[in-house]
Amino acid sequence: MSALDADVFELGSEHEQVVFCNDPASGLKAIVAIHSTALGPALGGTRFYPYATTADAVHDVLNLSRGMSYKAALAGLDLGGGKAVIIGDPATGKSEALLRAYGRFVQSLDGRYYTACDVGTNSLDMDHIARECDYVTGRTVAHGGAGDSSVLTAYGVFQGMRAAAEQVWGTDSLAGRTVGVAGVGKVGRHLVRHLIEDGASVVVTDVHQPSVDRVRDEFPQVTAVESTEALVASTLDVYAPCALGGALTDDVVDVLSAQVVCGAANNQLAHPGVEKALQERGILYAPDYCVNAGGLIQVADELEGFSFDRAQQRATGILDTTRRVFELARSEDVPPAIAADRLAERRMHDVGRLRGLWLNPR
Amino acid sequence: MSALDADVFELGSEHEQVVFCNDPASGLKAIVAIHSTALGPALGGTRFYPYATTADAVHDVLNLSRGMSYKAALAGLDLGGGKAVIIGDPATGKSEALLRAYGRFVQSLDGRYYTACDVGTNSLDMDHIARECDYVTGRTVAHGGAGDSSVLTAYGVFQGMRAAAEQVWGTDSLAGRTVGVAGVGKVGRHLVRHLIEDGASVVVTDVHQPSVDRVRDEFPQVTAVESTEALVASTLDVYAPCALGGALTDDVVDVLSAQVVCGAANNQLAHPGVEKALQERGILYAPDYCVNAGGLIQVADELEGFSFDRAQQRATGILDTTRRVFELARSEDVPPAIAADRLAERRMHDVGRLRGLWLNPR
Repeated sequence: MSALDADVFELGSEHEQVVFCNDPASGLKAIVAIHSTALGPALGGTRFYPYATTADAVHDVLNLSRGMSYKAALAGLDLGGGKAVIIGDPATGKSEALLRAYGRFVQSLDGRYYTACDVGTNSLDMDHIARECDYVTGRTVAHGGAGDSSVLTAYGVFQGMRAAAEQVWGTDSLAGRTVGVAGVGKVGRHLVRHLIEDGASVVVTDVHQPSVDRVRDEFPQVTAVESTEALVASTLDVYAPCALGGALTDDVVDVLSAQVVCGAANNQLAHPGVEKALQERGILYAPDYCVNAGGLIQVADELEGFSFDRAQQRATGILDTTRRVFELARSEDVPPAIAADRLAERRMHDVGRLRGLWLNPR
Repeated sequence: MSALDADVFELGSEHEQVVFCNDPASGLKAIVAIHSTALGPALGGTRFYPYATTADAVHDVLNLSRGMSYKAALAGLDLGGGKAVIIGDPATGKSEALLRAYGRFVQSLDGRYYTACDVGTNSLDMDHIARECDYVTGRTVAHGGAGDSSVLTAYGVFQGMRAAAEQVWGTDSLAGRTVGVAGVGKVGRHLVRHLIEDGASVVVTDVHQPSVDRVRDEFPQVTAVESTEALVASTLDVYAPCALGGALTDDVVDVLSAQVVCGAANNQLAHPGVEKALQERGILYAPDYCVNAGGLIQVADELEGFSFDRAQQRATGILDTTRRVFELARSEDVPPAIAADRLAERRMHDVGRLRGLWLNPR
């Protein structure tokens, strides 16, 4: 990537604010990107990753923060979209001093950005950050954190899958359907449980054999195949990508027998245009960020003092949100991925403008 | 300038924080750079300028904010160094909405950065910004601003010149000396008054003839020459650059008869190394940012509720600060420009570390 690609005002032409934070003594180099605060303070995780160049880090944080705006908007949350990256190797570069220096910078943004866990950071890190900062979610349970967000993420994906089933087969049950789950780590495992309880047949795969073994110990009726390639080529009603991004390539779309794609992975579409290829092949795609918002809903709930029941109720709303995405896709004749973006943009616009109605500050 | 030059972490390796602020609706593109908060919140003006590229703007704001850290530190203020740039033409791009959008971004930094007037912005602009923001100096007098900062800037330069005279001629008076003042706009004019009152002979020049006429109307004994070239080539005891930066080129140093250089202009040294050339020619250079800190002292005083007497007392301190610069230059055998940097750096370090002694928060 050329350095020219890192012009923050060009790349971030939609973004409100991009903050470079530097603390040589602790080695901290962080970038916080606030894409939109139309609906509320920006929330998004802190990714700790050894980016090769500053430009790579800028690209990533801008893309990820934009995605958070859309996810929060579509999930009906009073939150905007943001994200942060810390440049470095989390295995060797992480220290109390670095995390707390980062916390002071997040604090300096006065609540316009709330952080959370992401790739390379965990709840213990959030506890360190929170020693310098009021704007932290994803903390340890002992410190008021919501705990493992994979439970509600899986629950939300299941709600999205129900909406898709309703659309395709006229019933919101997966009973009797064959669902292929690629990736049965934290989230996929919980999704398998929902599917089994609903009466579906489940086929799984995972590069990590112990994950497969654990699922099959718990649910002996689950079958396993040796690879994602084998899974997508098998006879499925639903394909649920729950591992890395980019699962939906042109090749996968070509071989897929499933009529529904609905999974927990982020950024499932390998490139723009795959959403159209899916539509042309008659495959209903439940947009990733619509159905996997349960985790965000969970950490967002911490801001009000975490209640699992309240967060679960909100995650149940993914059923209805996914229905609305499919309805808009039909009425405006666009793929569901485009419909989801439009719903998110309309909410940012229509609800965001309400702040223009002046009220006495509370 | 290549875009590679705009890697914020490389260029700003000393800087704490660099904030890109974007508001497409009003056209705002601003960058706030916070170089150091070792001594207190960063203070520095907002420059409104039509930079050709984002990289140009990044370079400028990083350099300017660094300069503010050194100026505030050497002036003995409890302030760090920052600066902001707004990319655009102030004649056509300025609007209430843009200024207030900018104000909201400055507010979002929660007091780590205080803004002020700079090239392209004025006190009325600061009043707009302050409608959204608590961290604004340089406001109109009617809104609590300190007003025209050229009075104390000139006063401070005169104090610096007294210290230089003392060093060279053994007396802190300019009586009987010939002082050449290049630029008799707002600051230079006040400097002429101090010099005349002290008994100096004054020669002036200015590209703007009405400015020359006004000074000669007020002080008929002042002589004028037609150009800066003519001024520096004439017989002088002191040369006072009070116009654009870069006044001290190799050519100027070669022809200068003055034994002292002390003026109000910023960035007088045209390039690194000129400070050594001056020293080798036996010319005592009173560092620009040491002697022209009166304006900063004045706007900084606004933070406590402006008192001219208190600000003037602090500006009187420039006499002693300049003495200390010359003493350190002698004792460490370096040019005064280097000595000034060292004094500033030592204060940032020695006083900055005191925050490490914990006190109950006030």
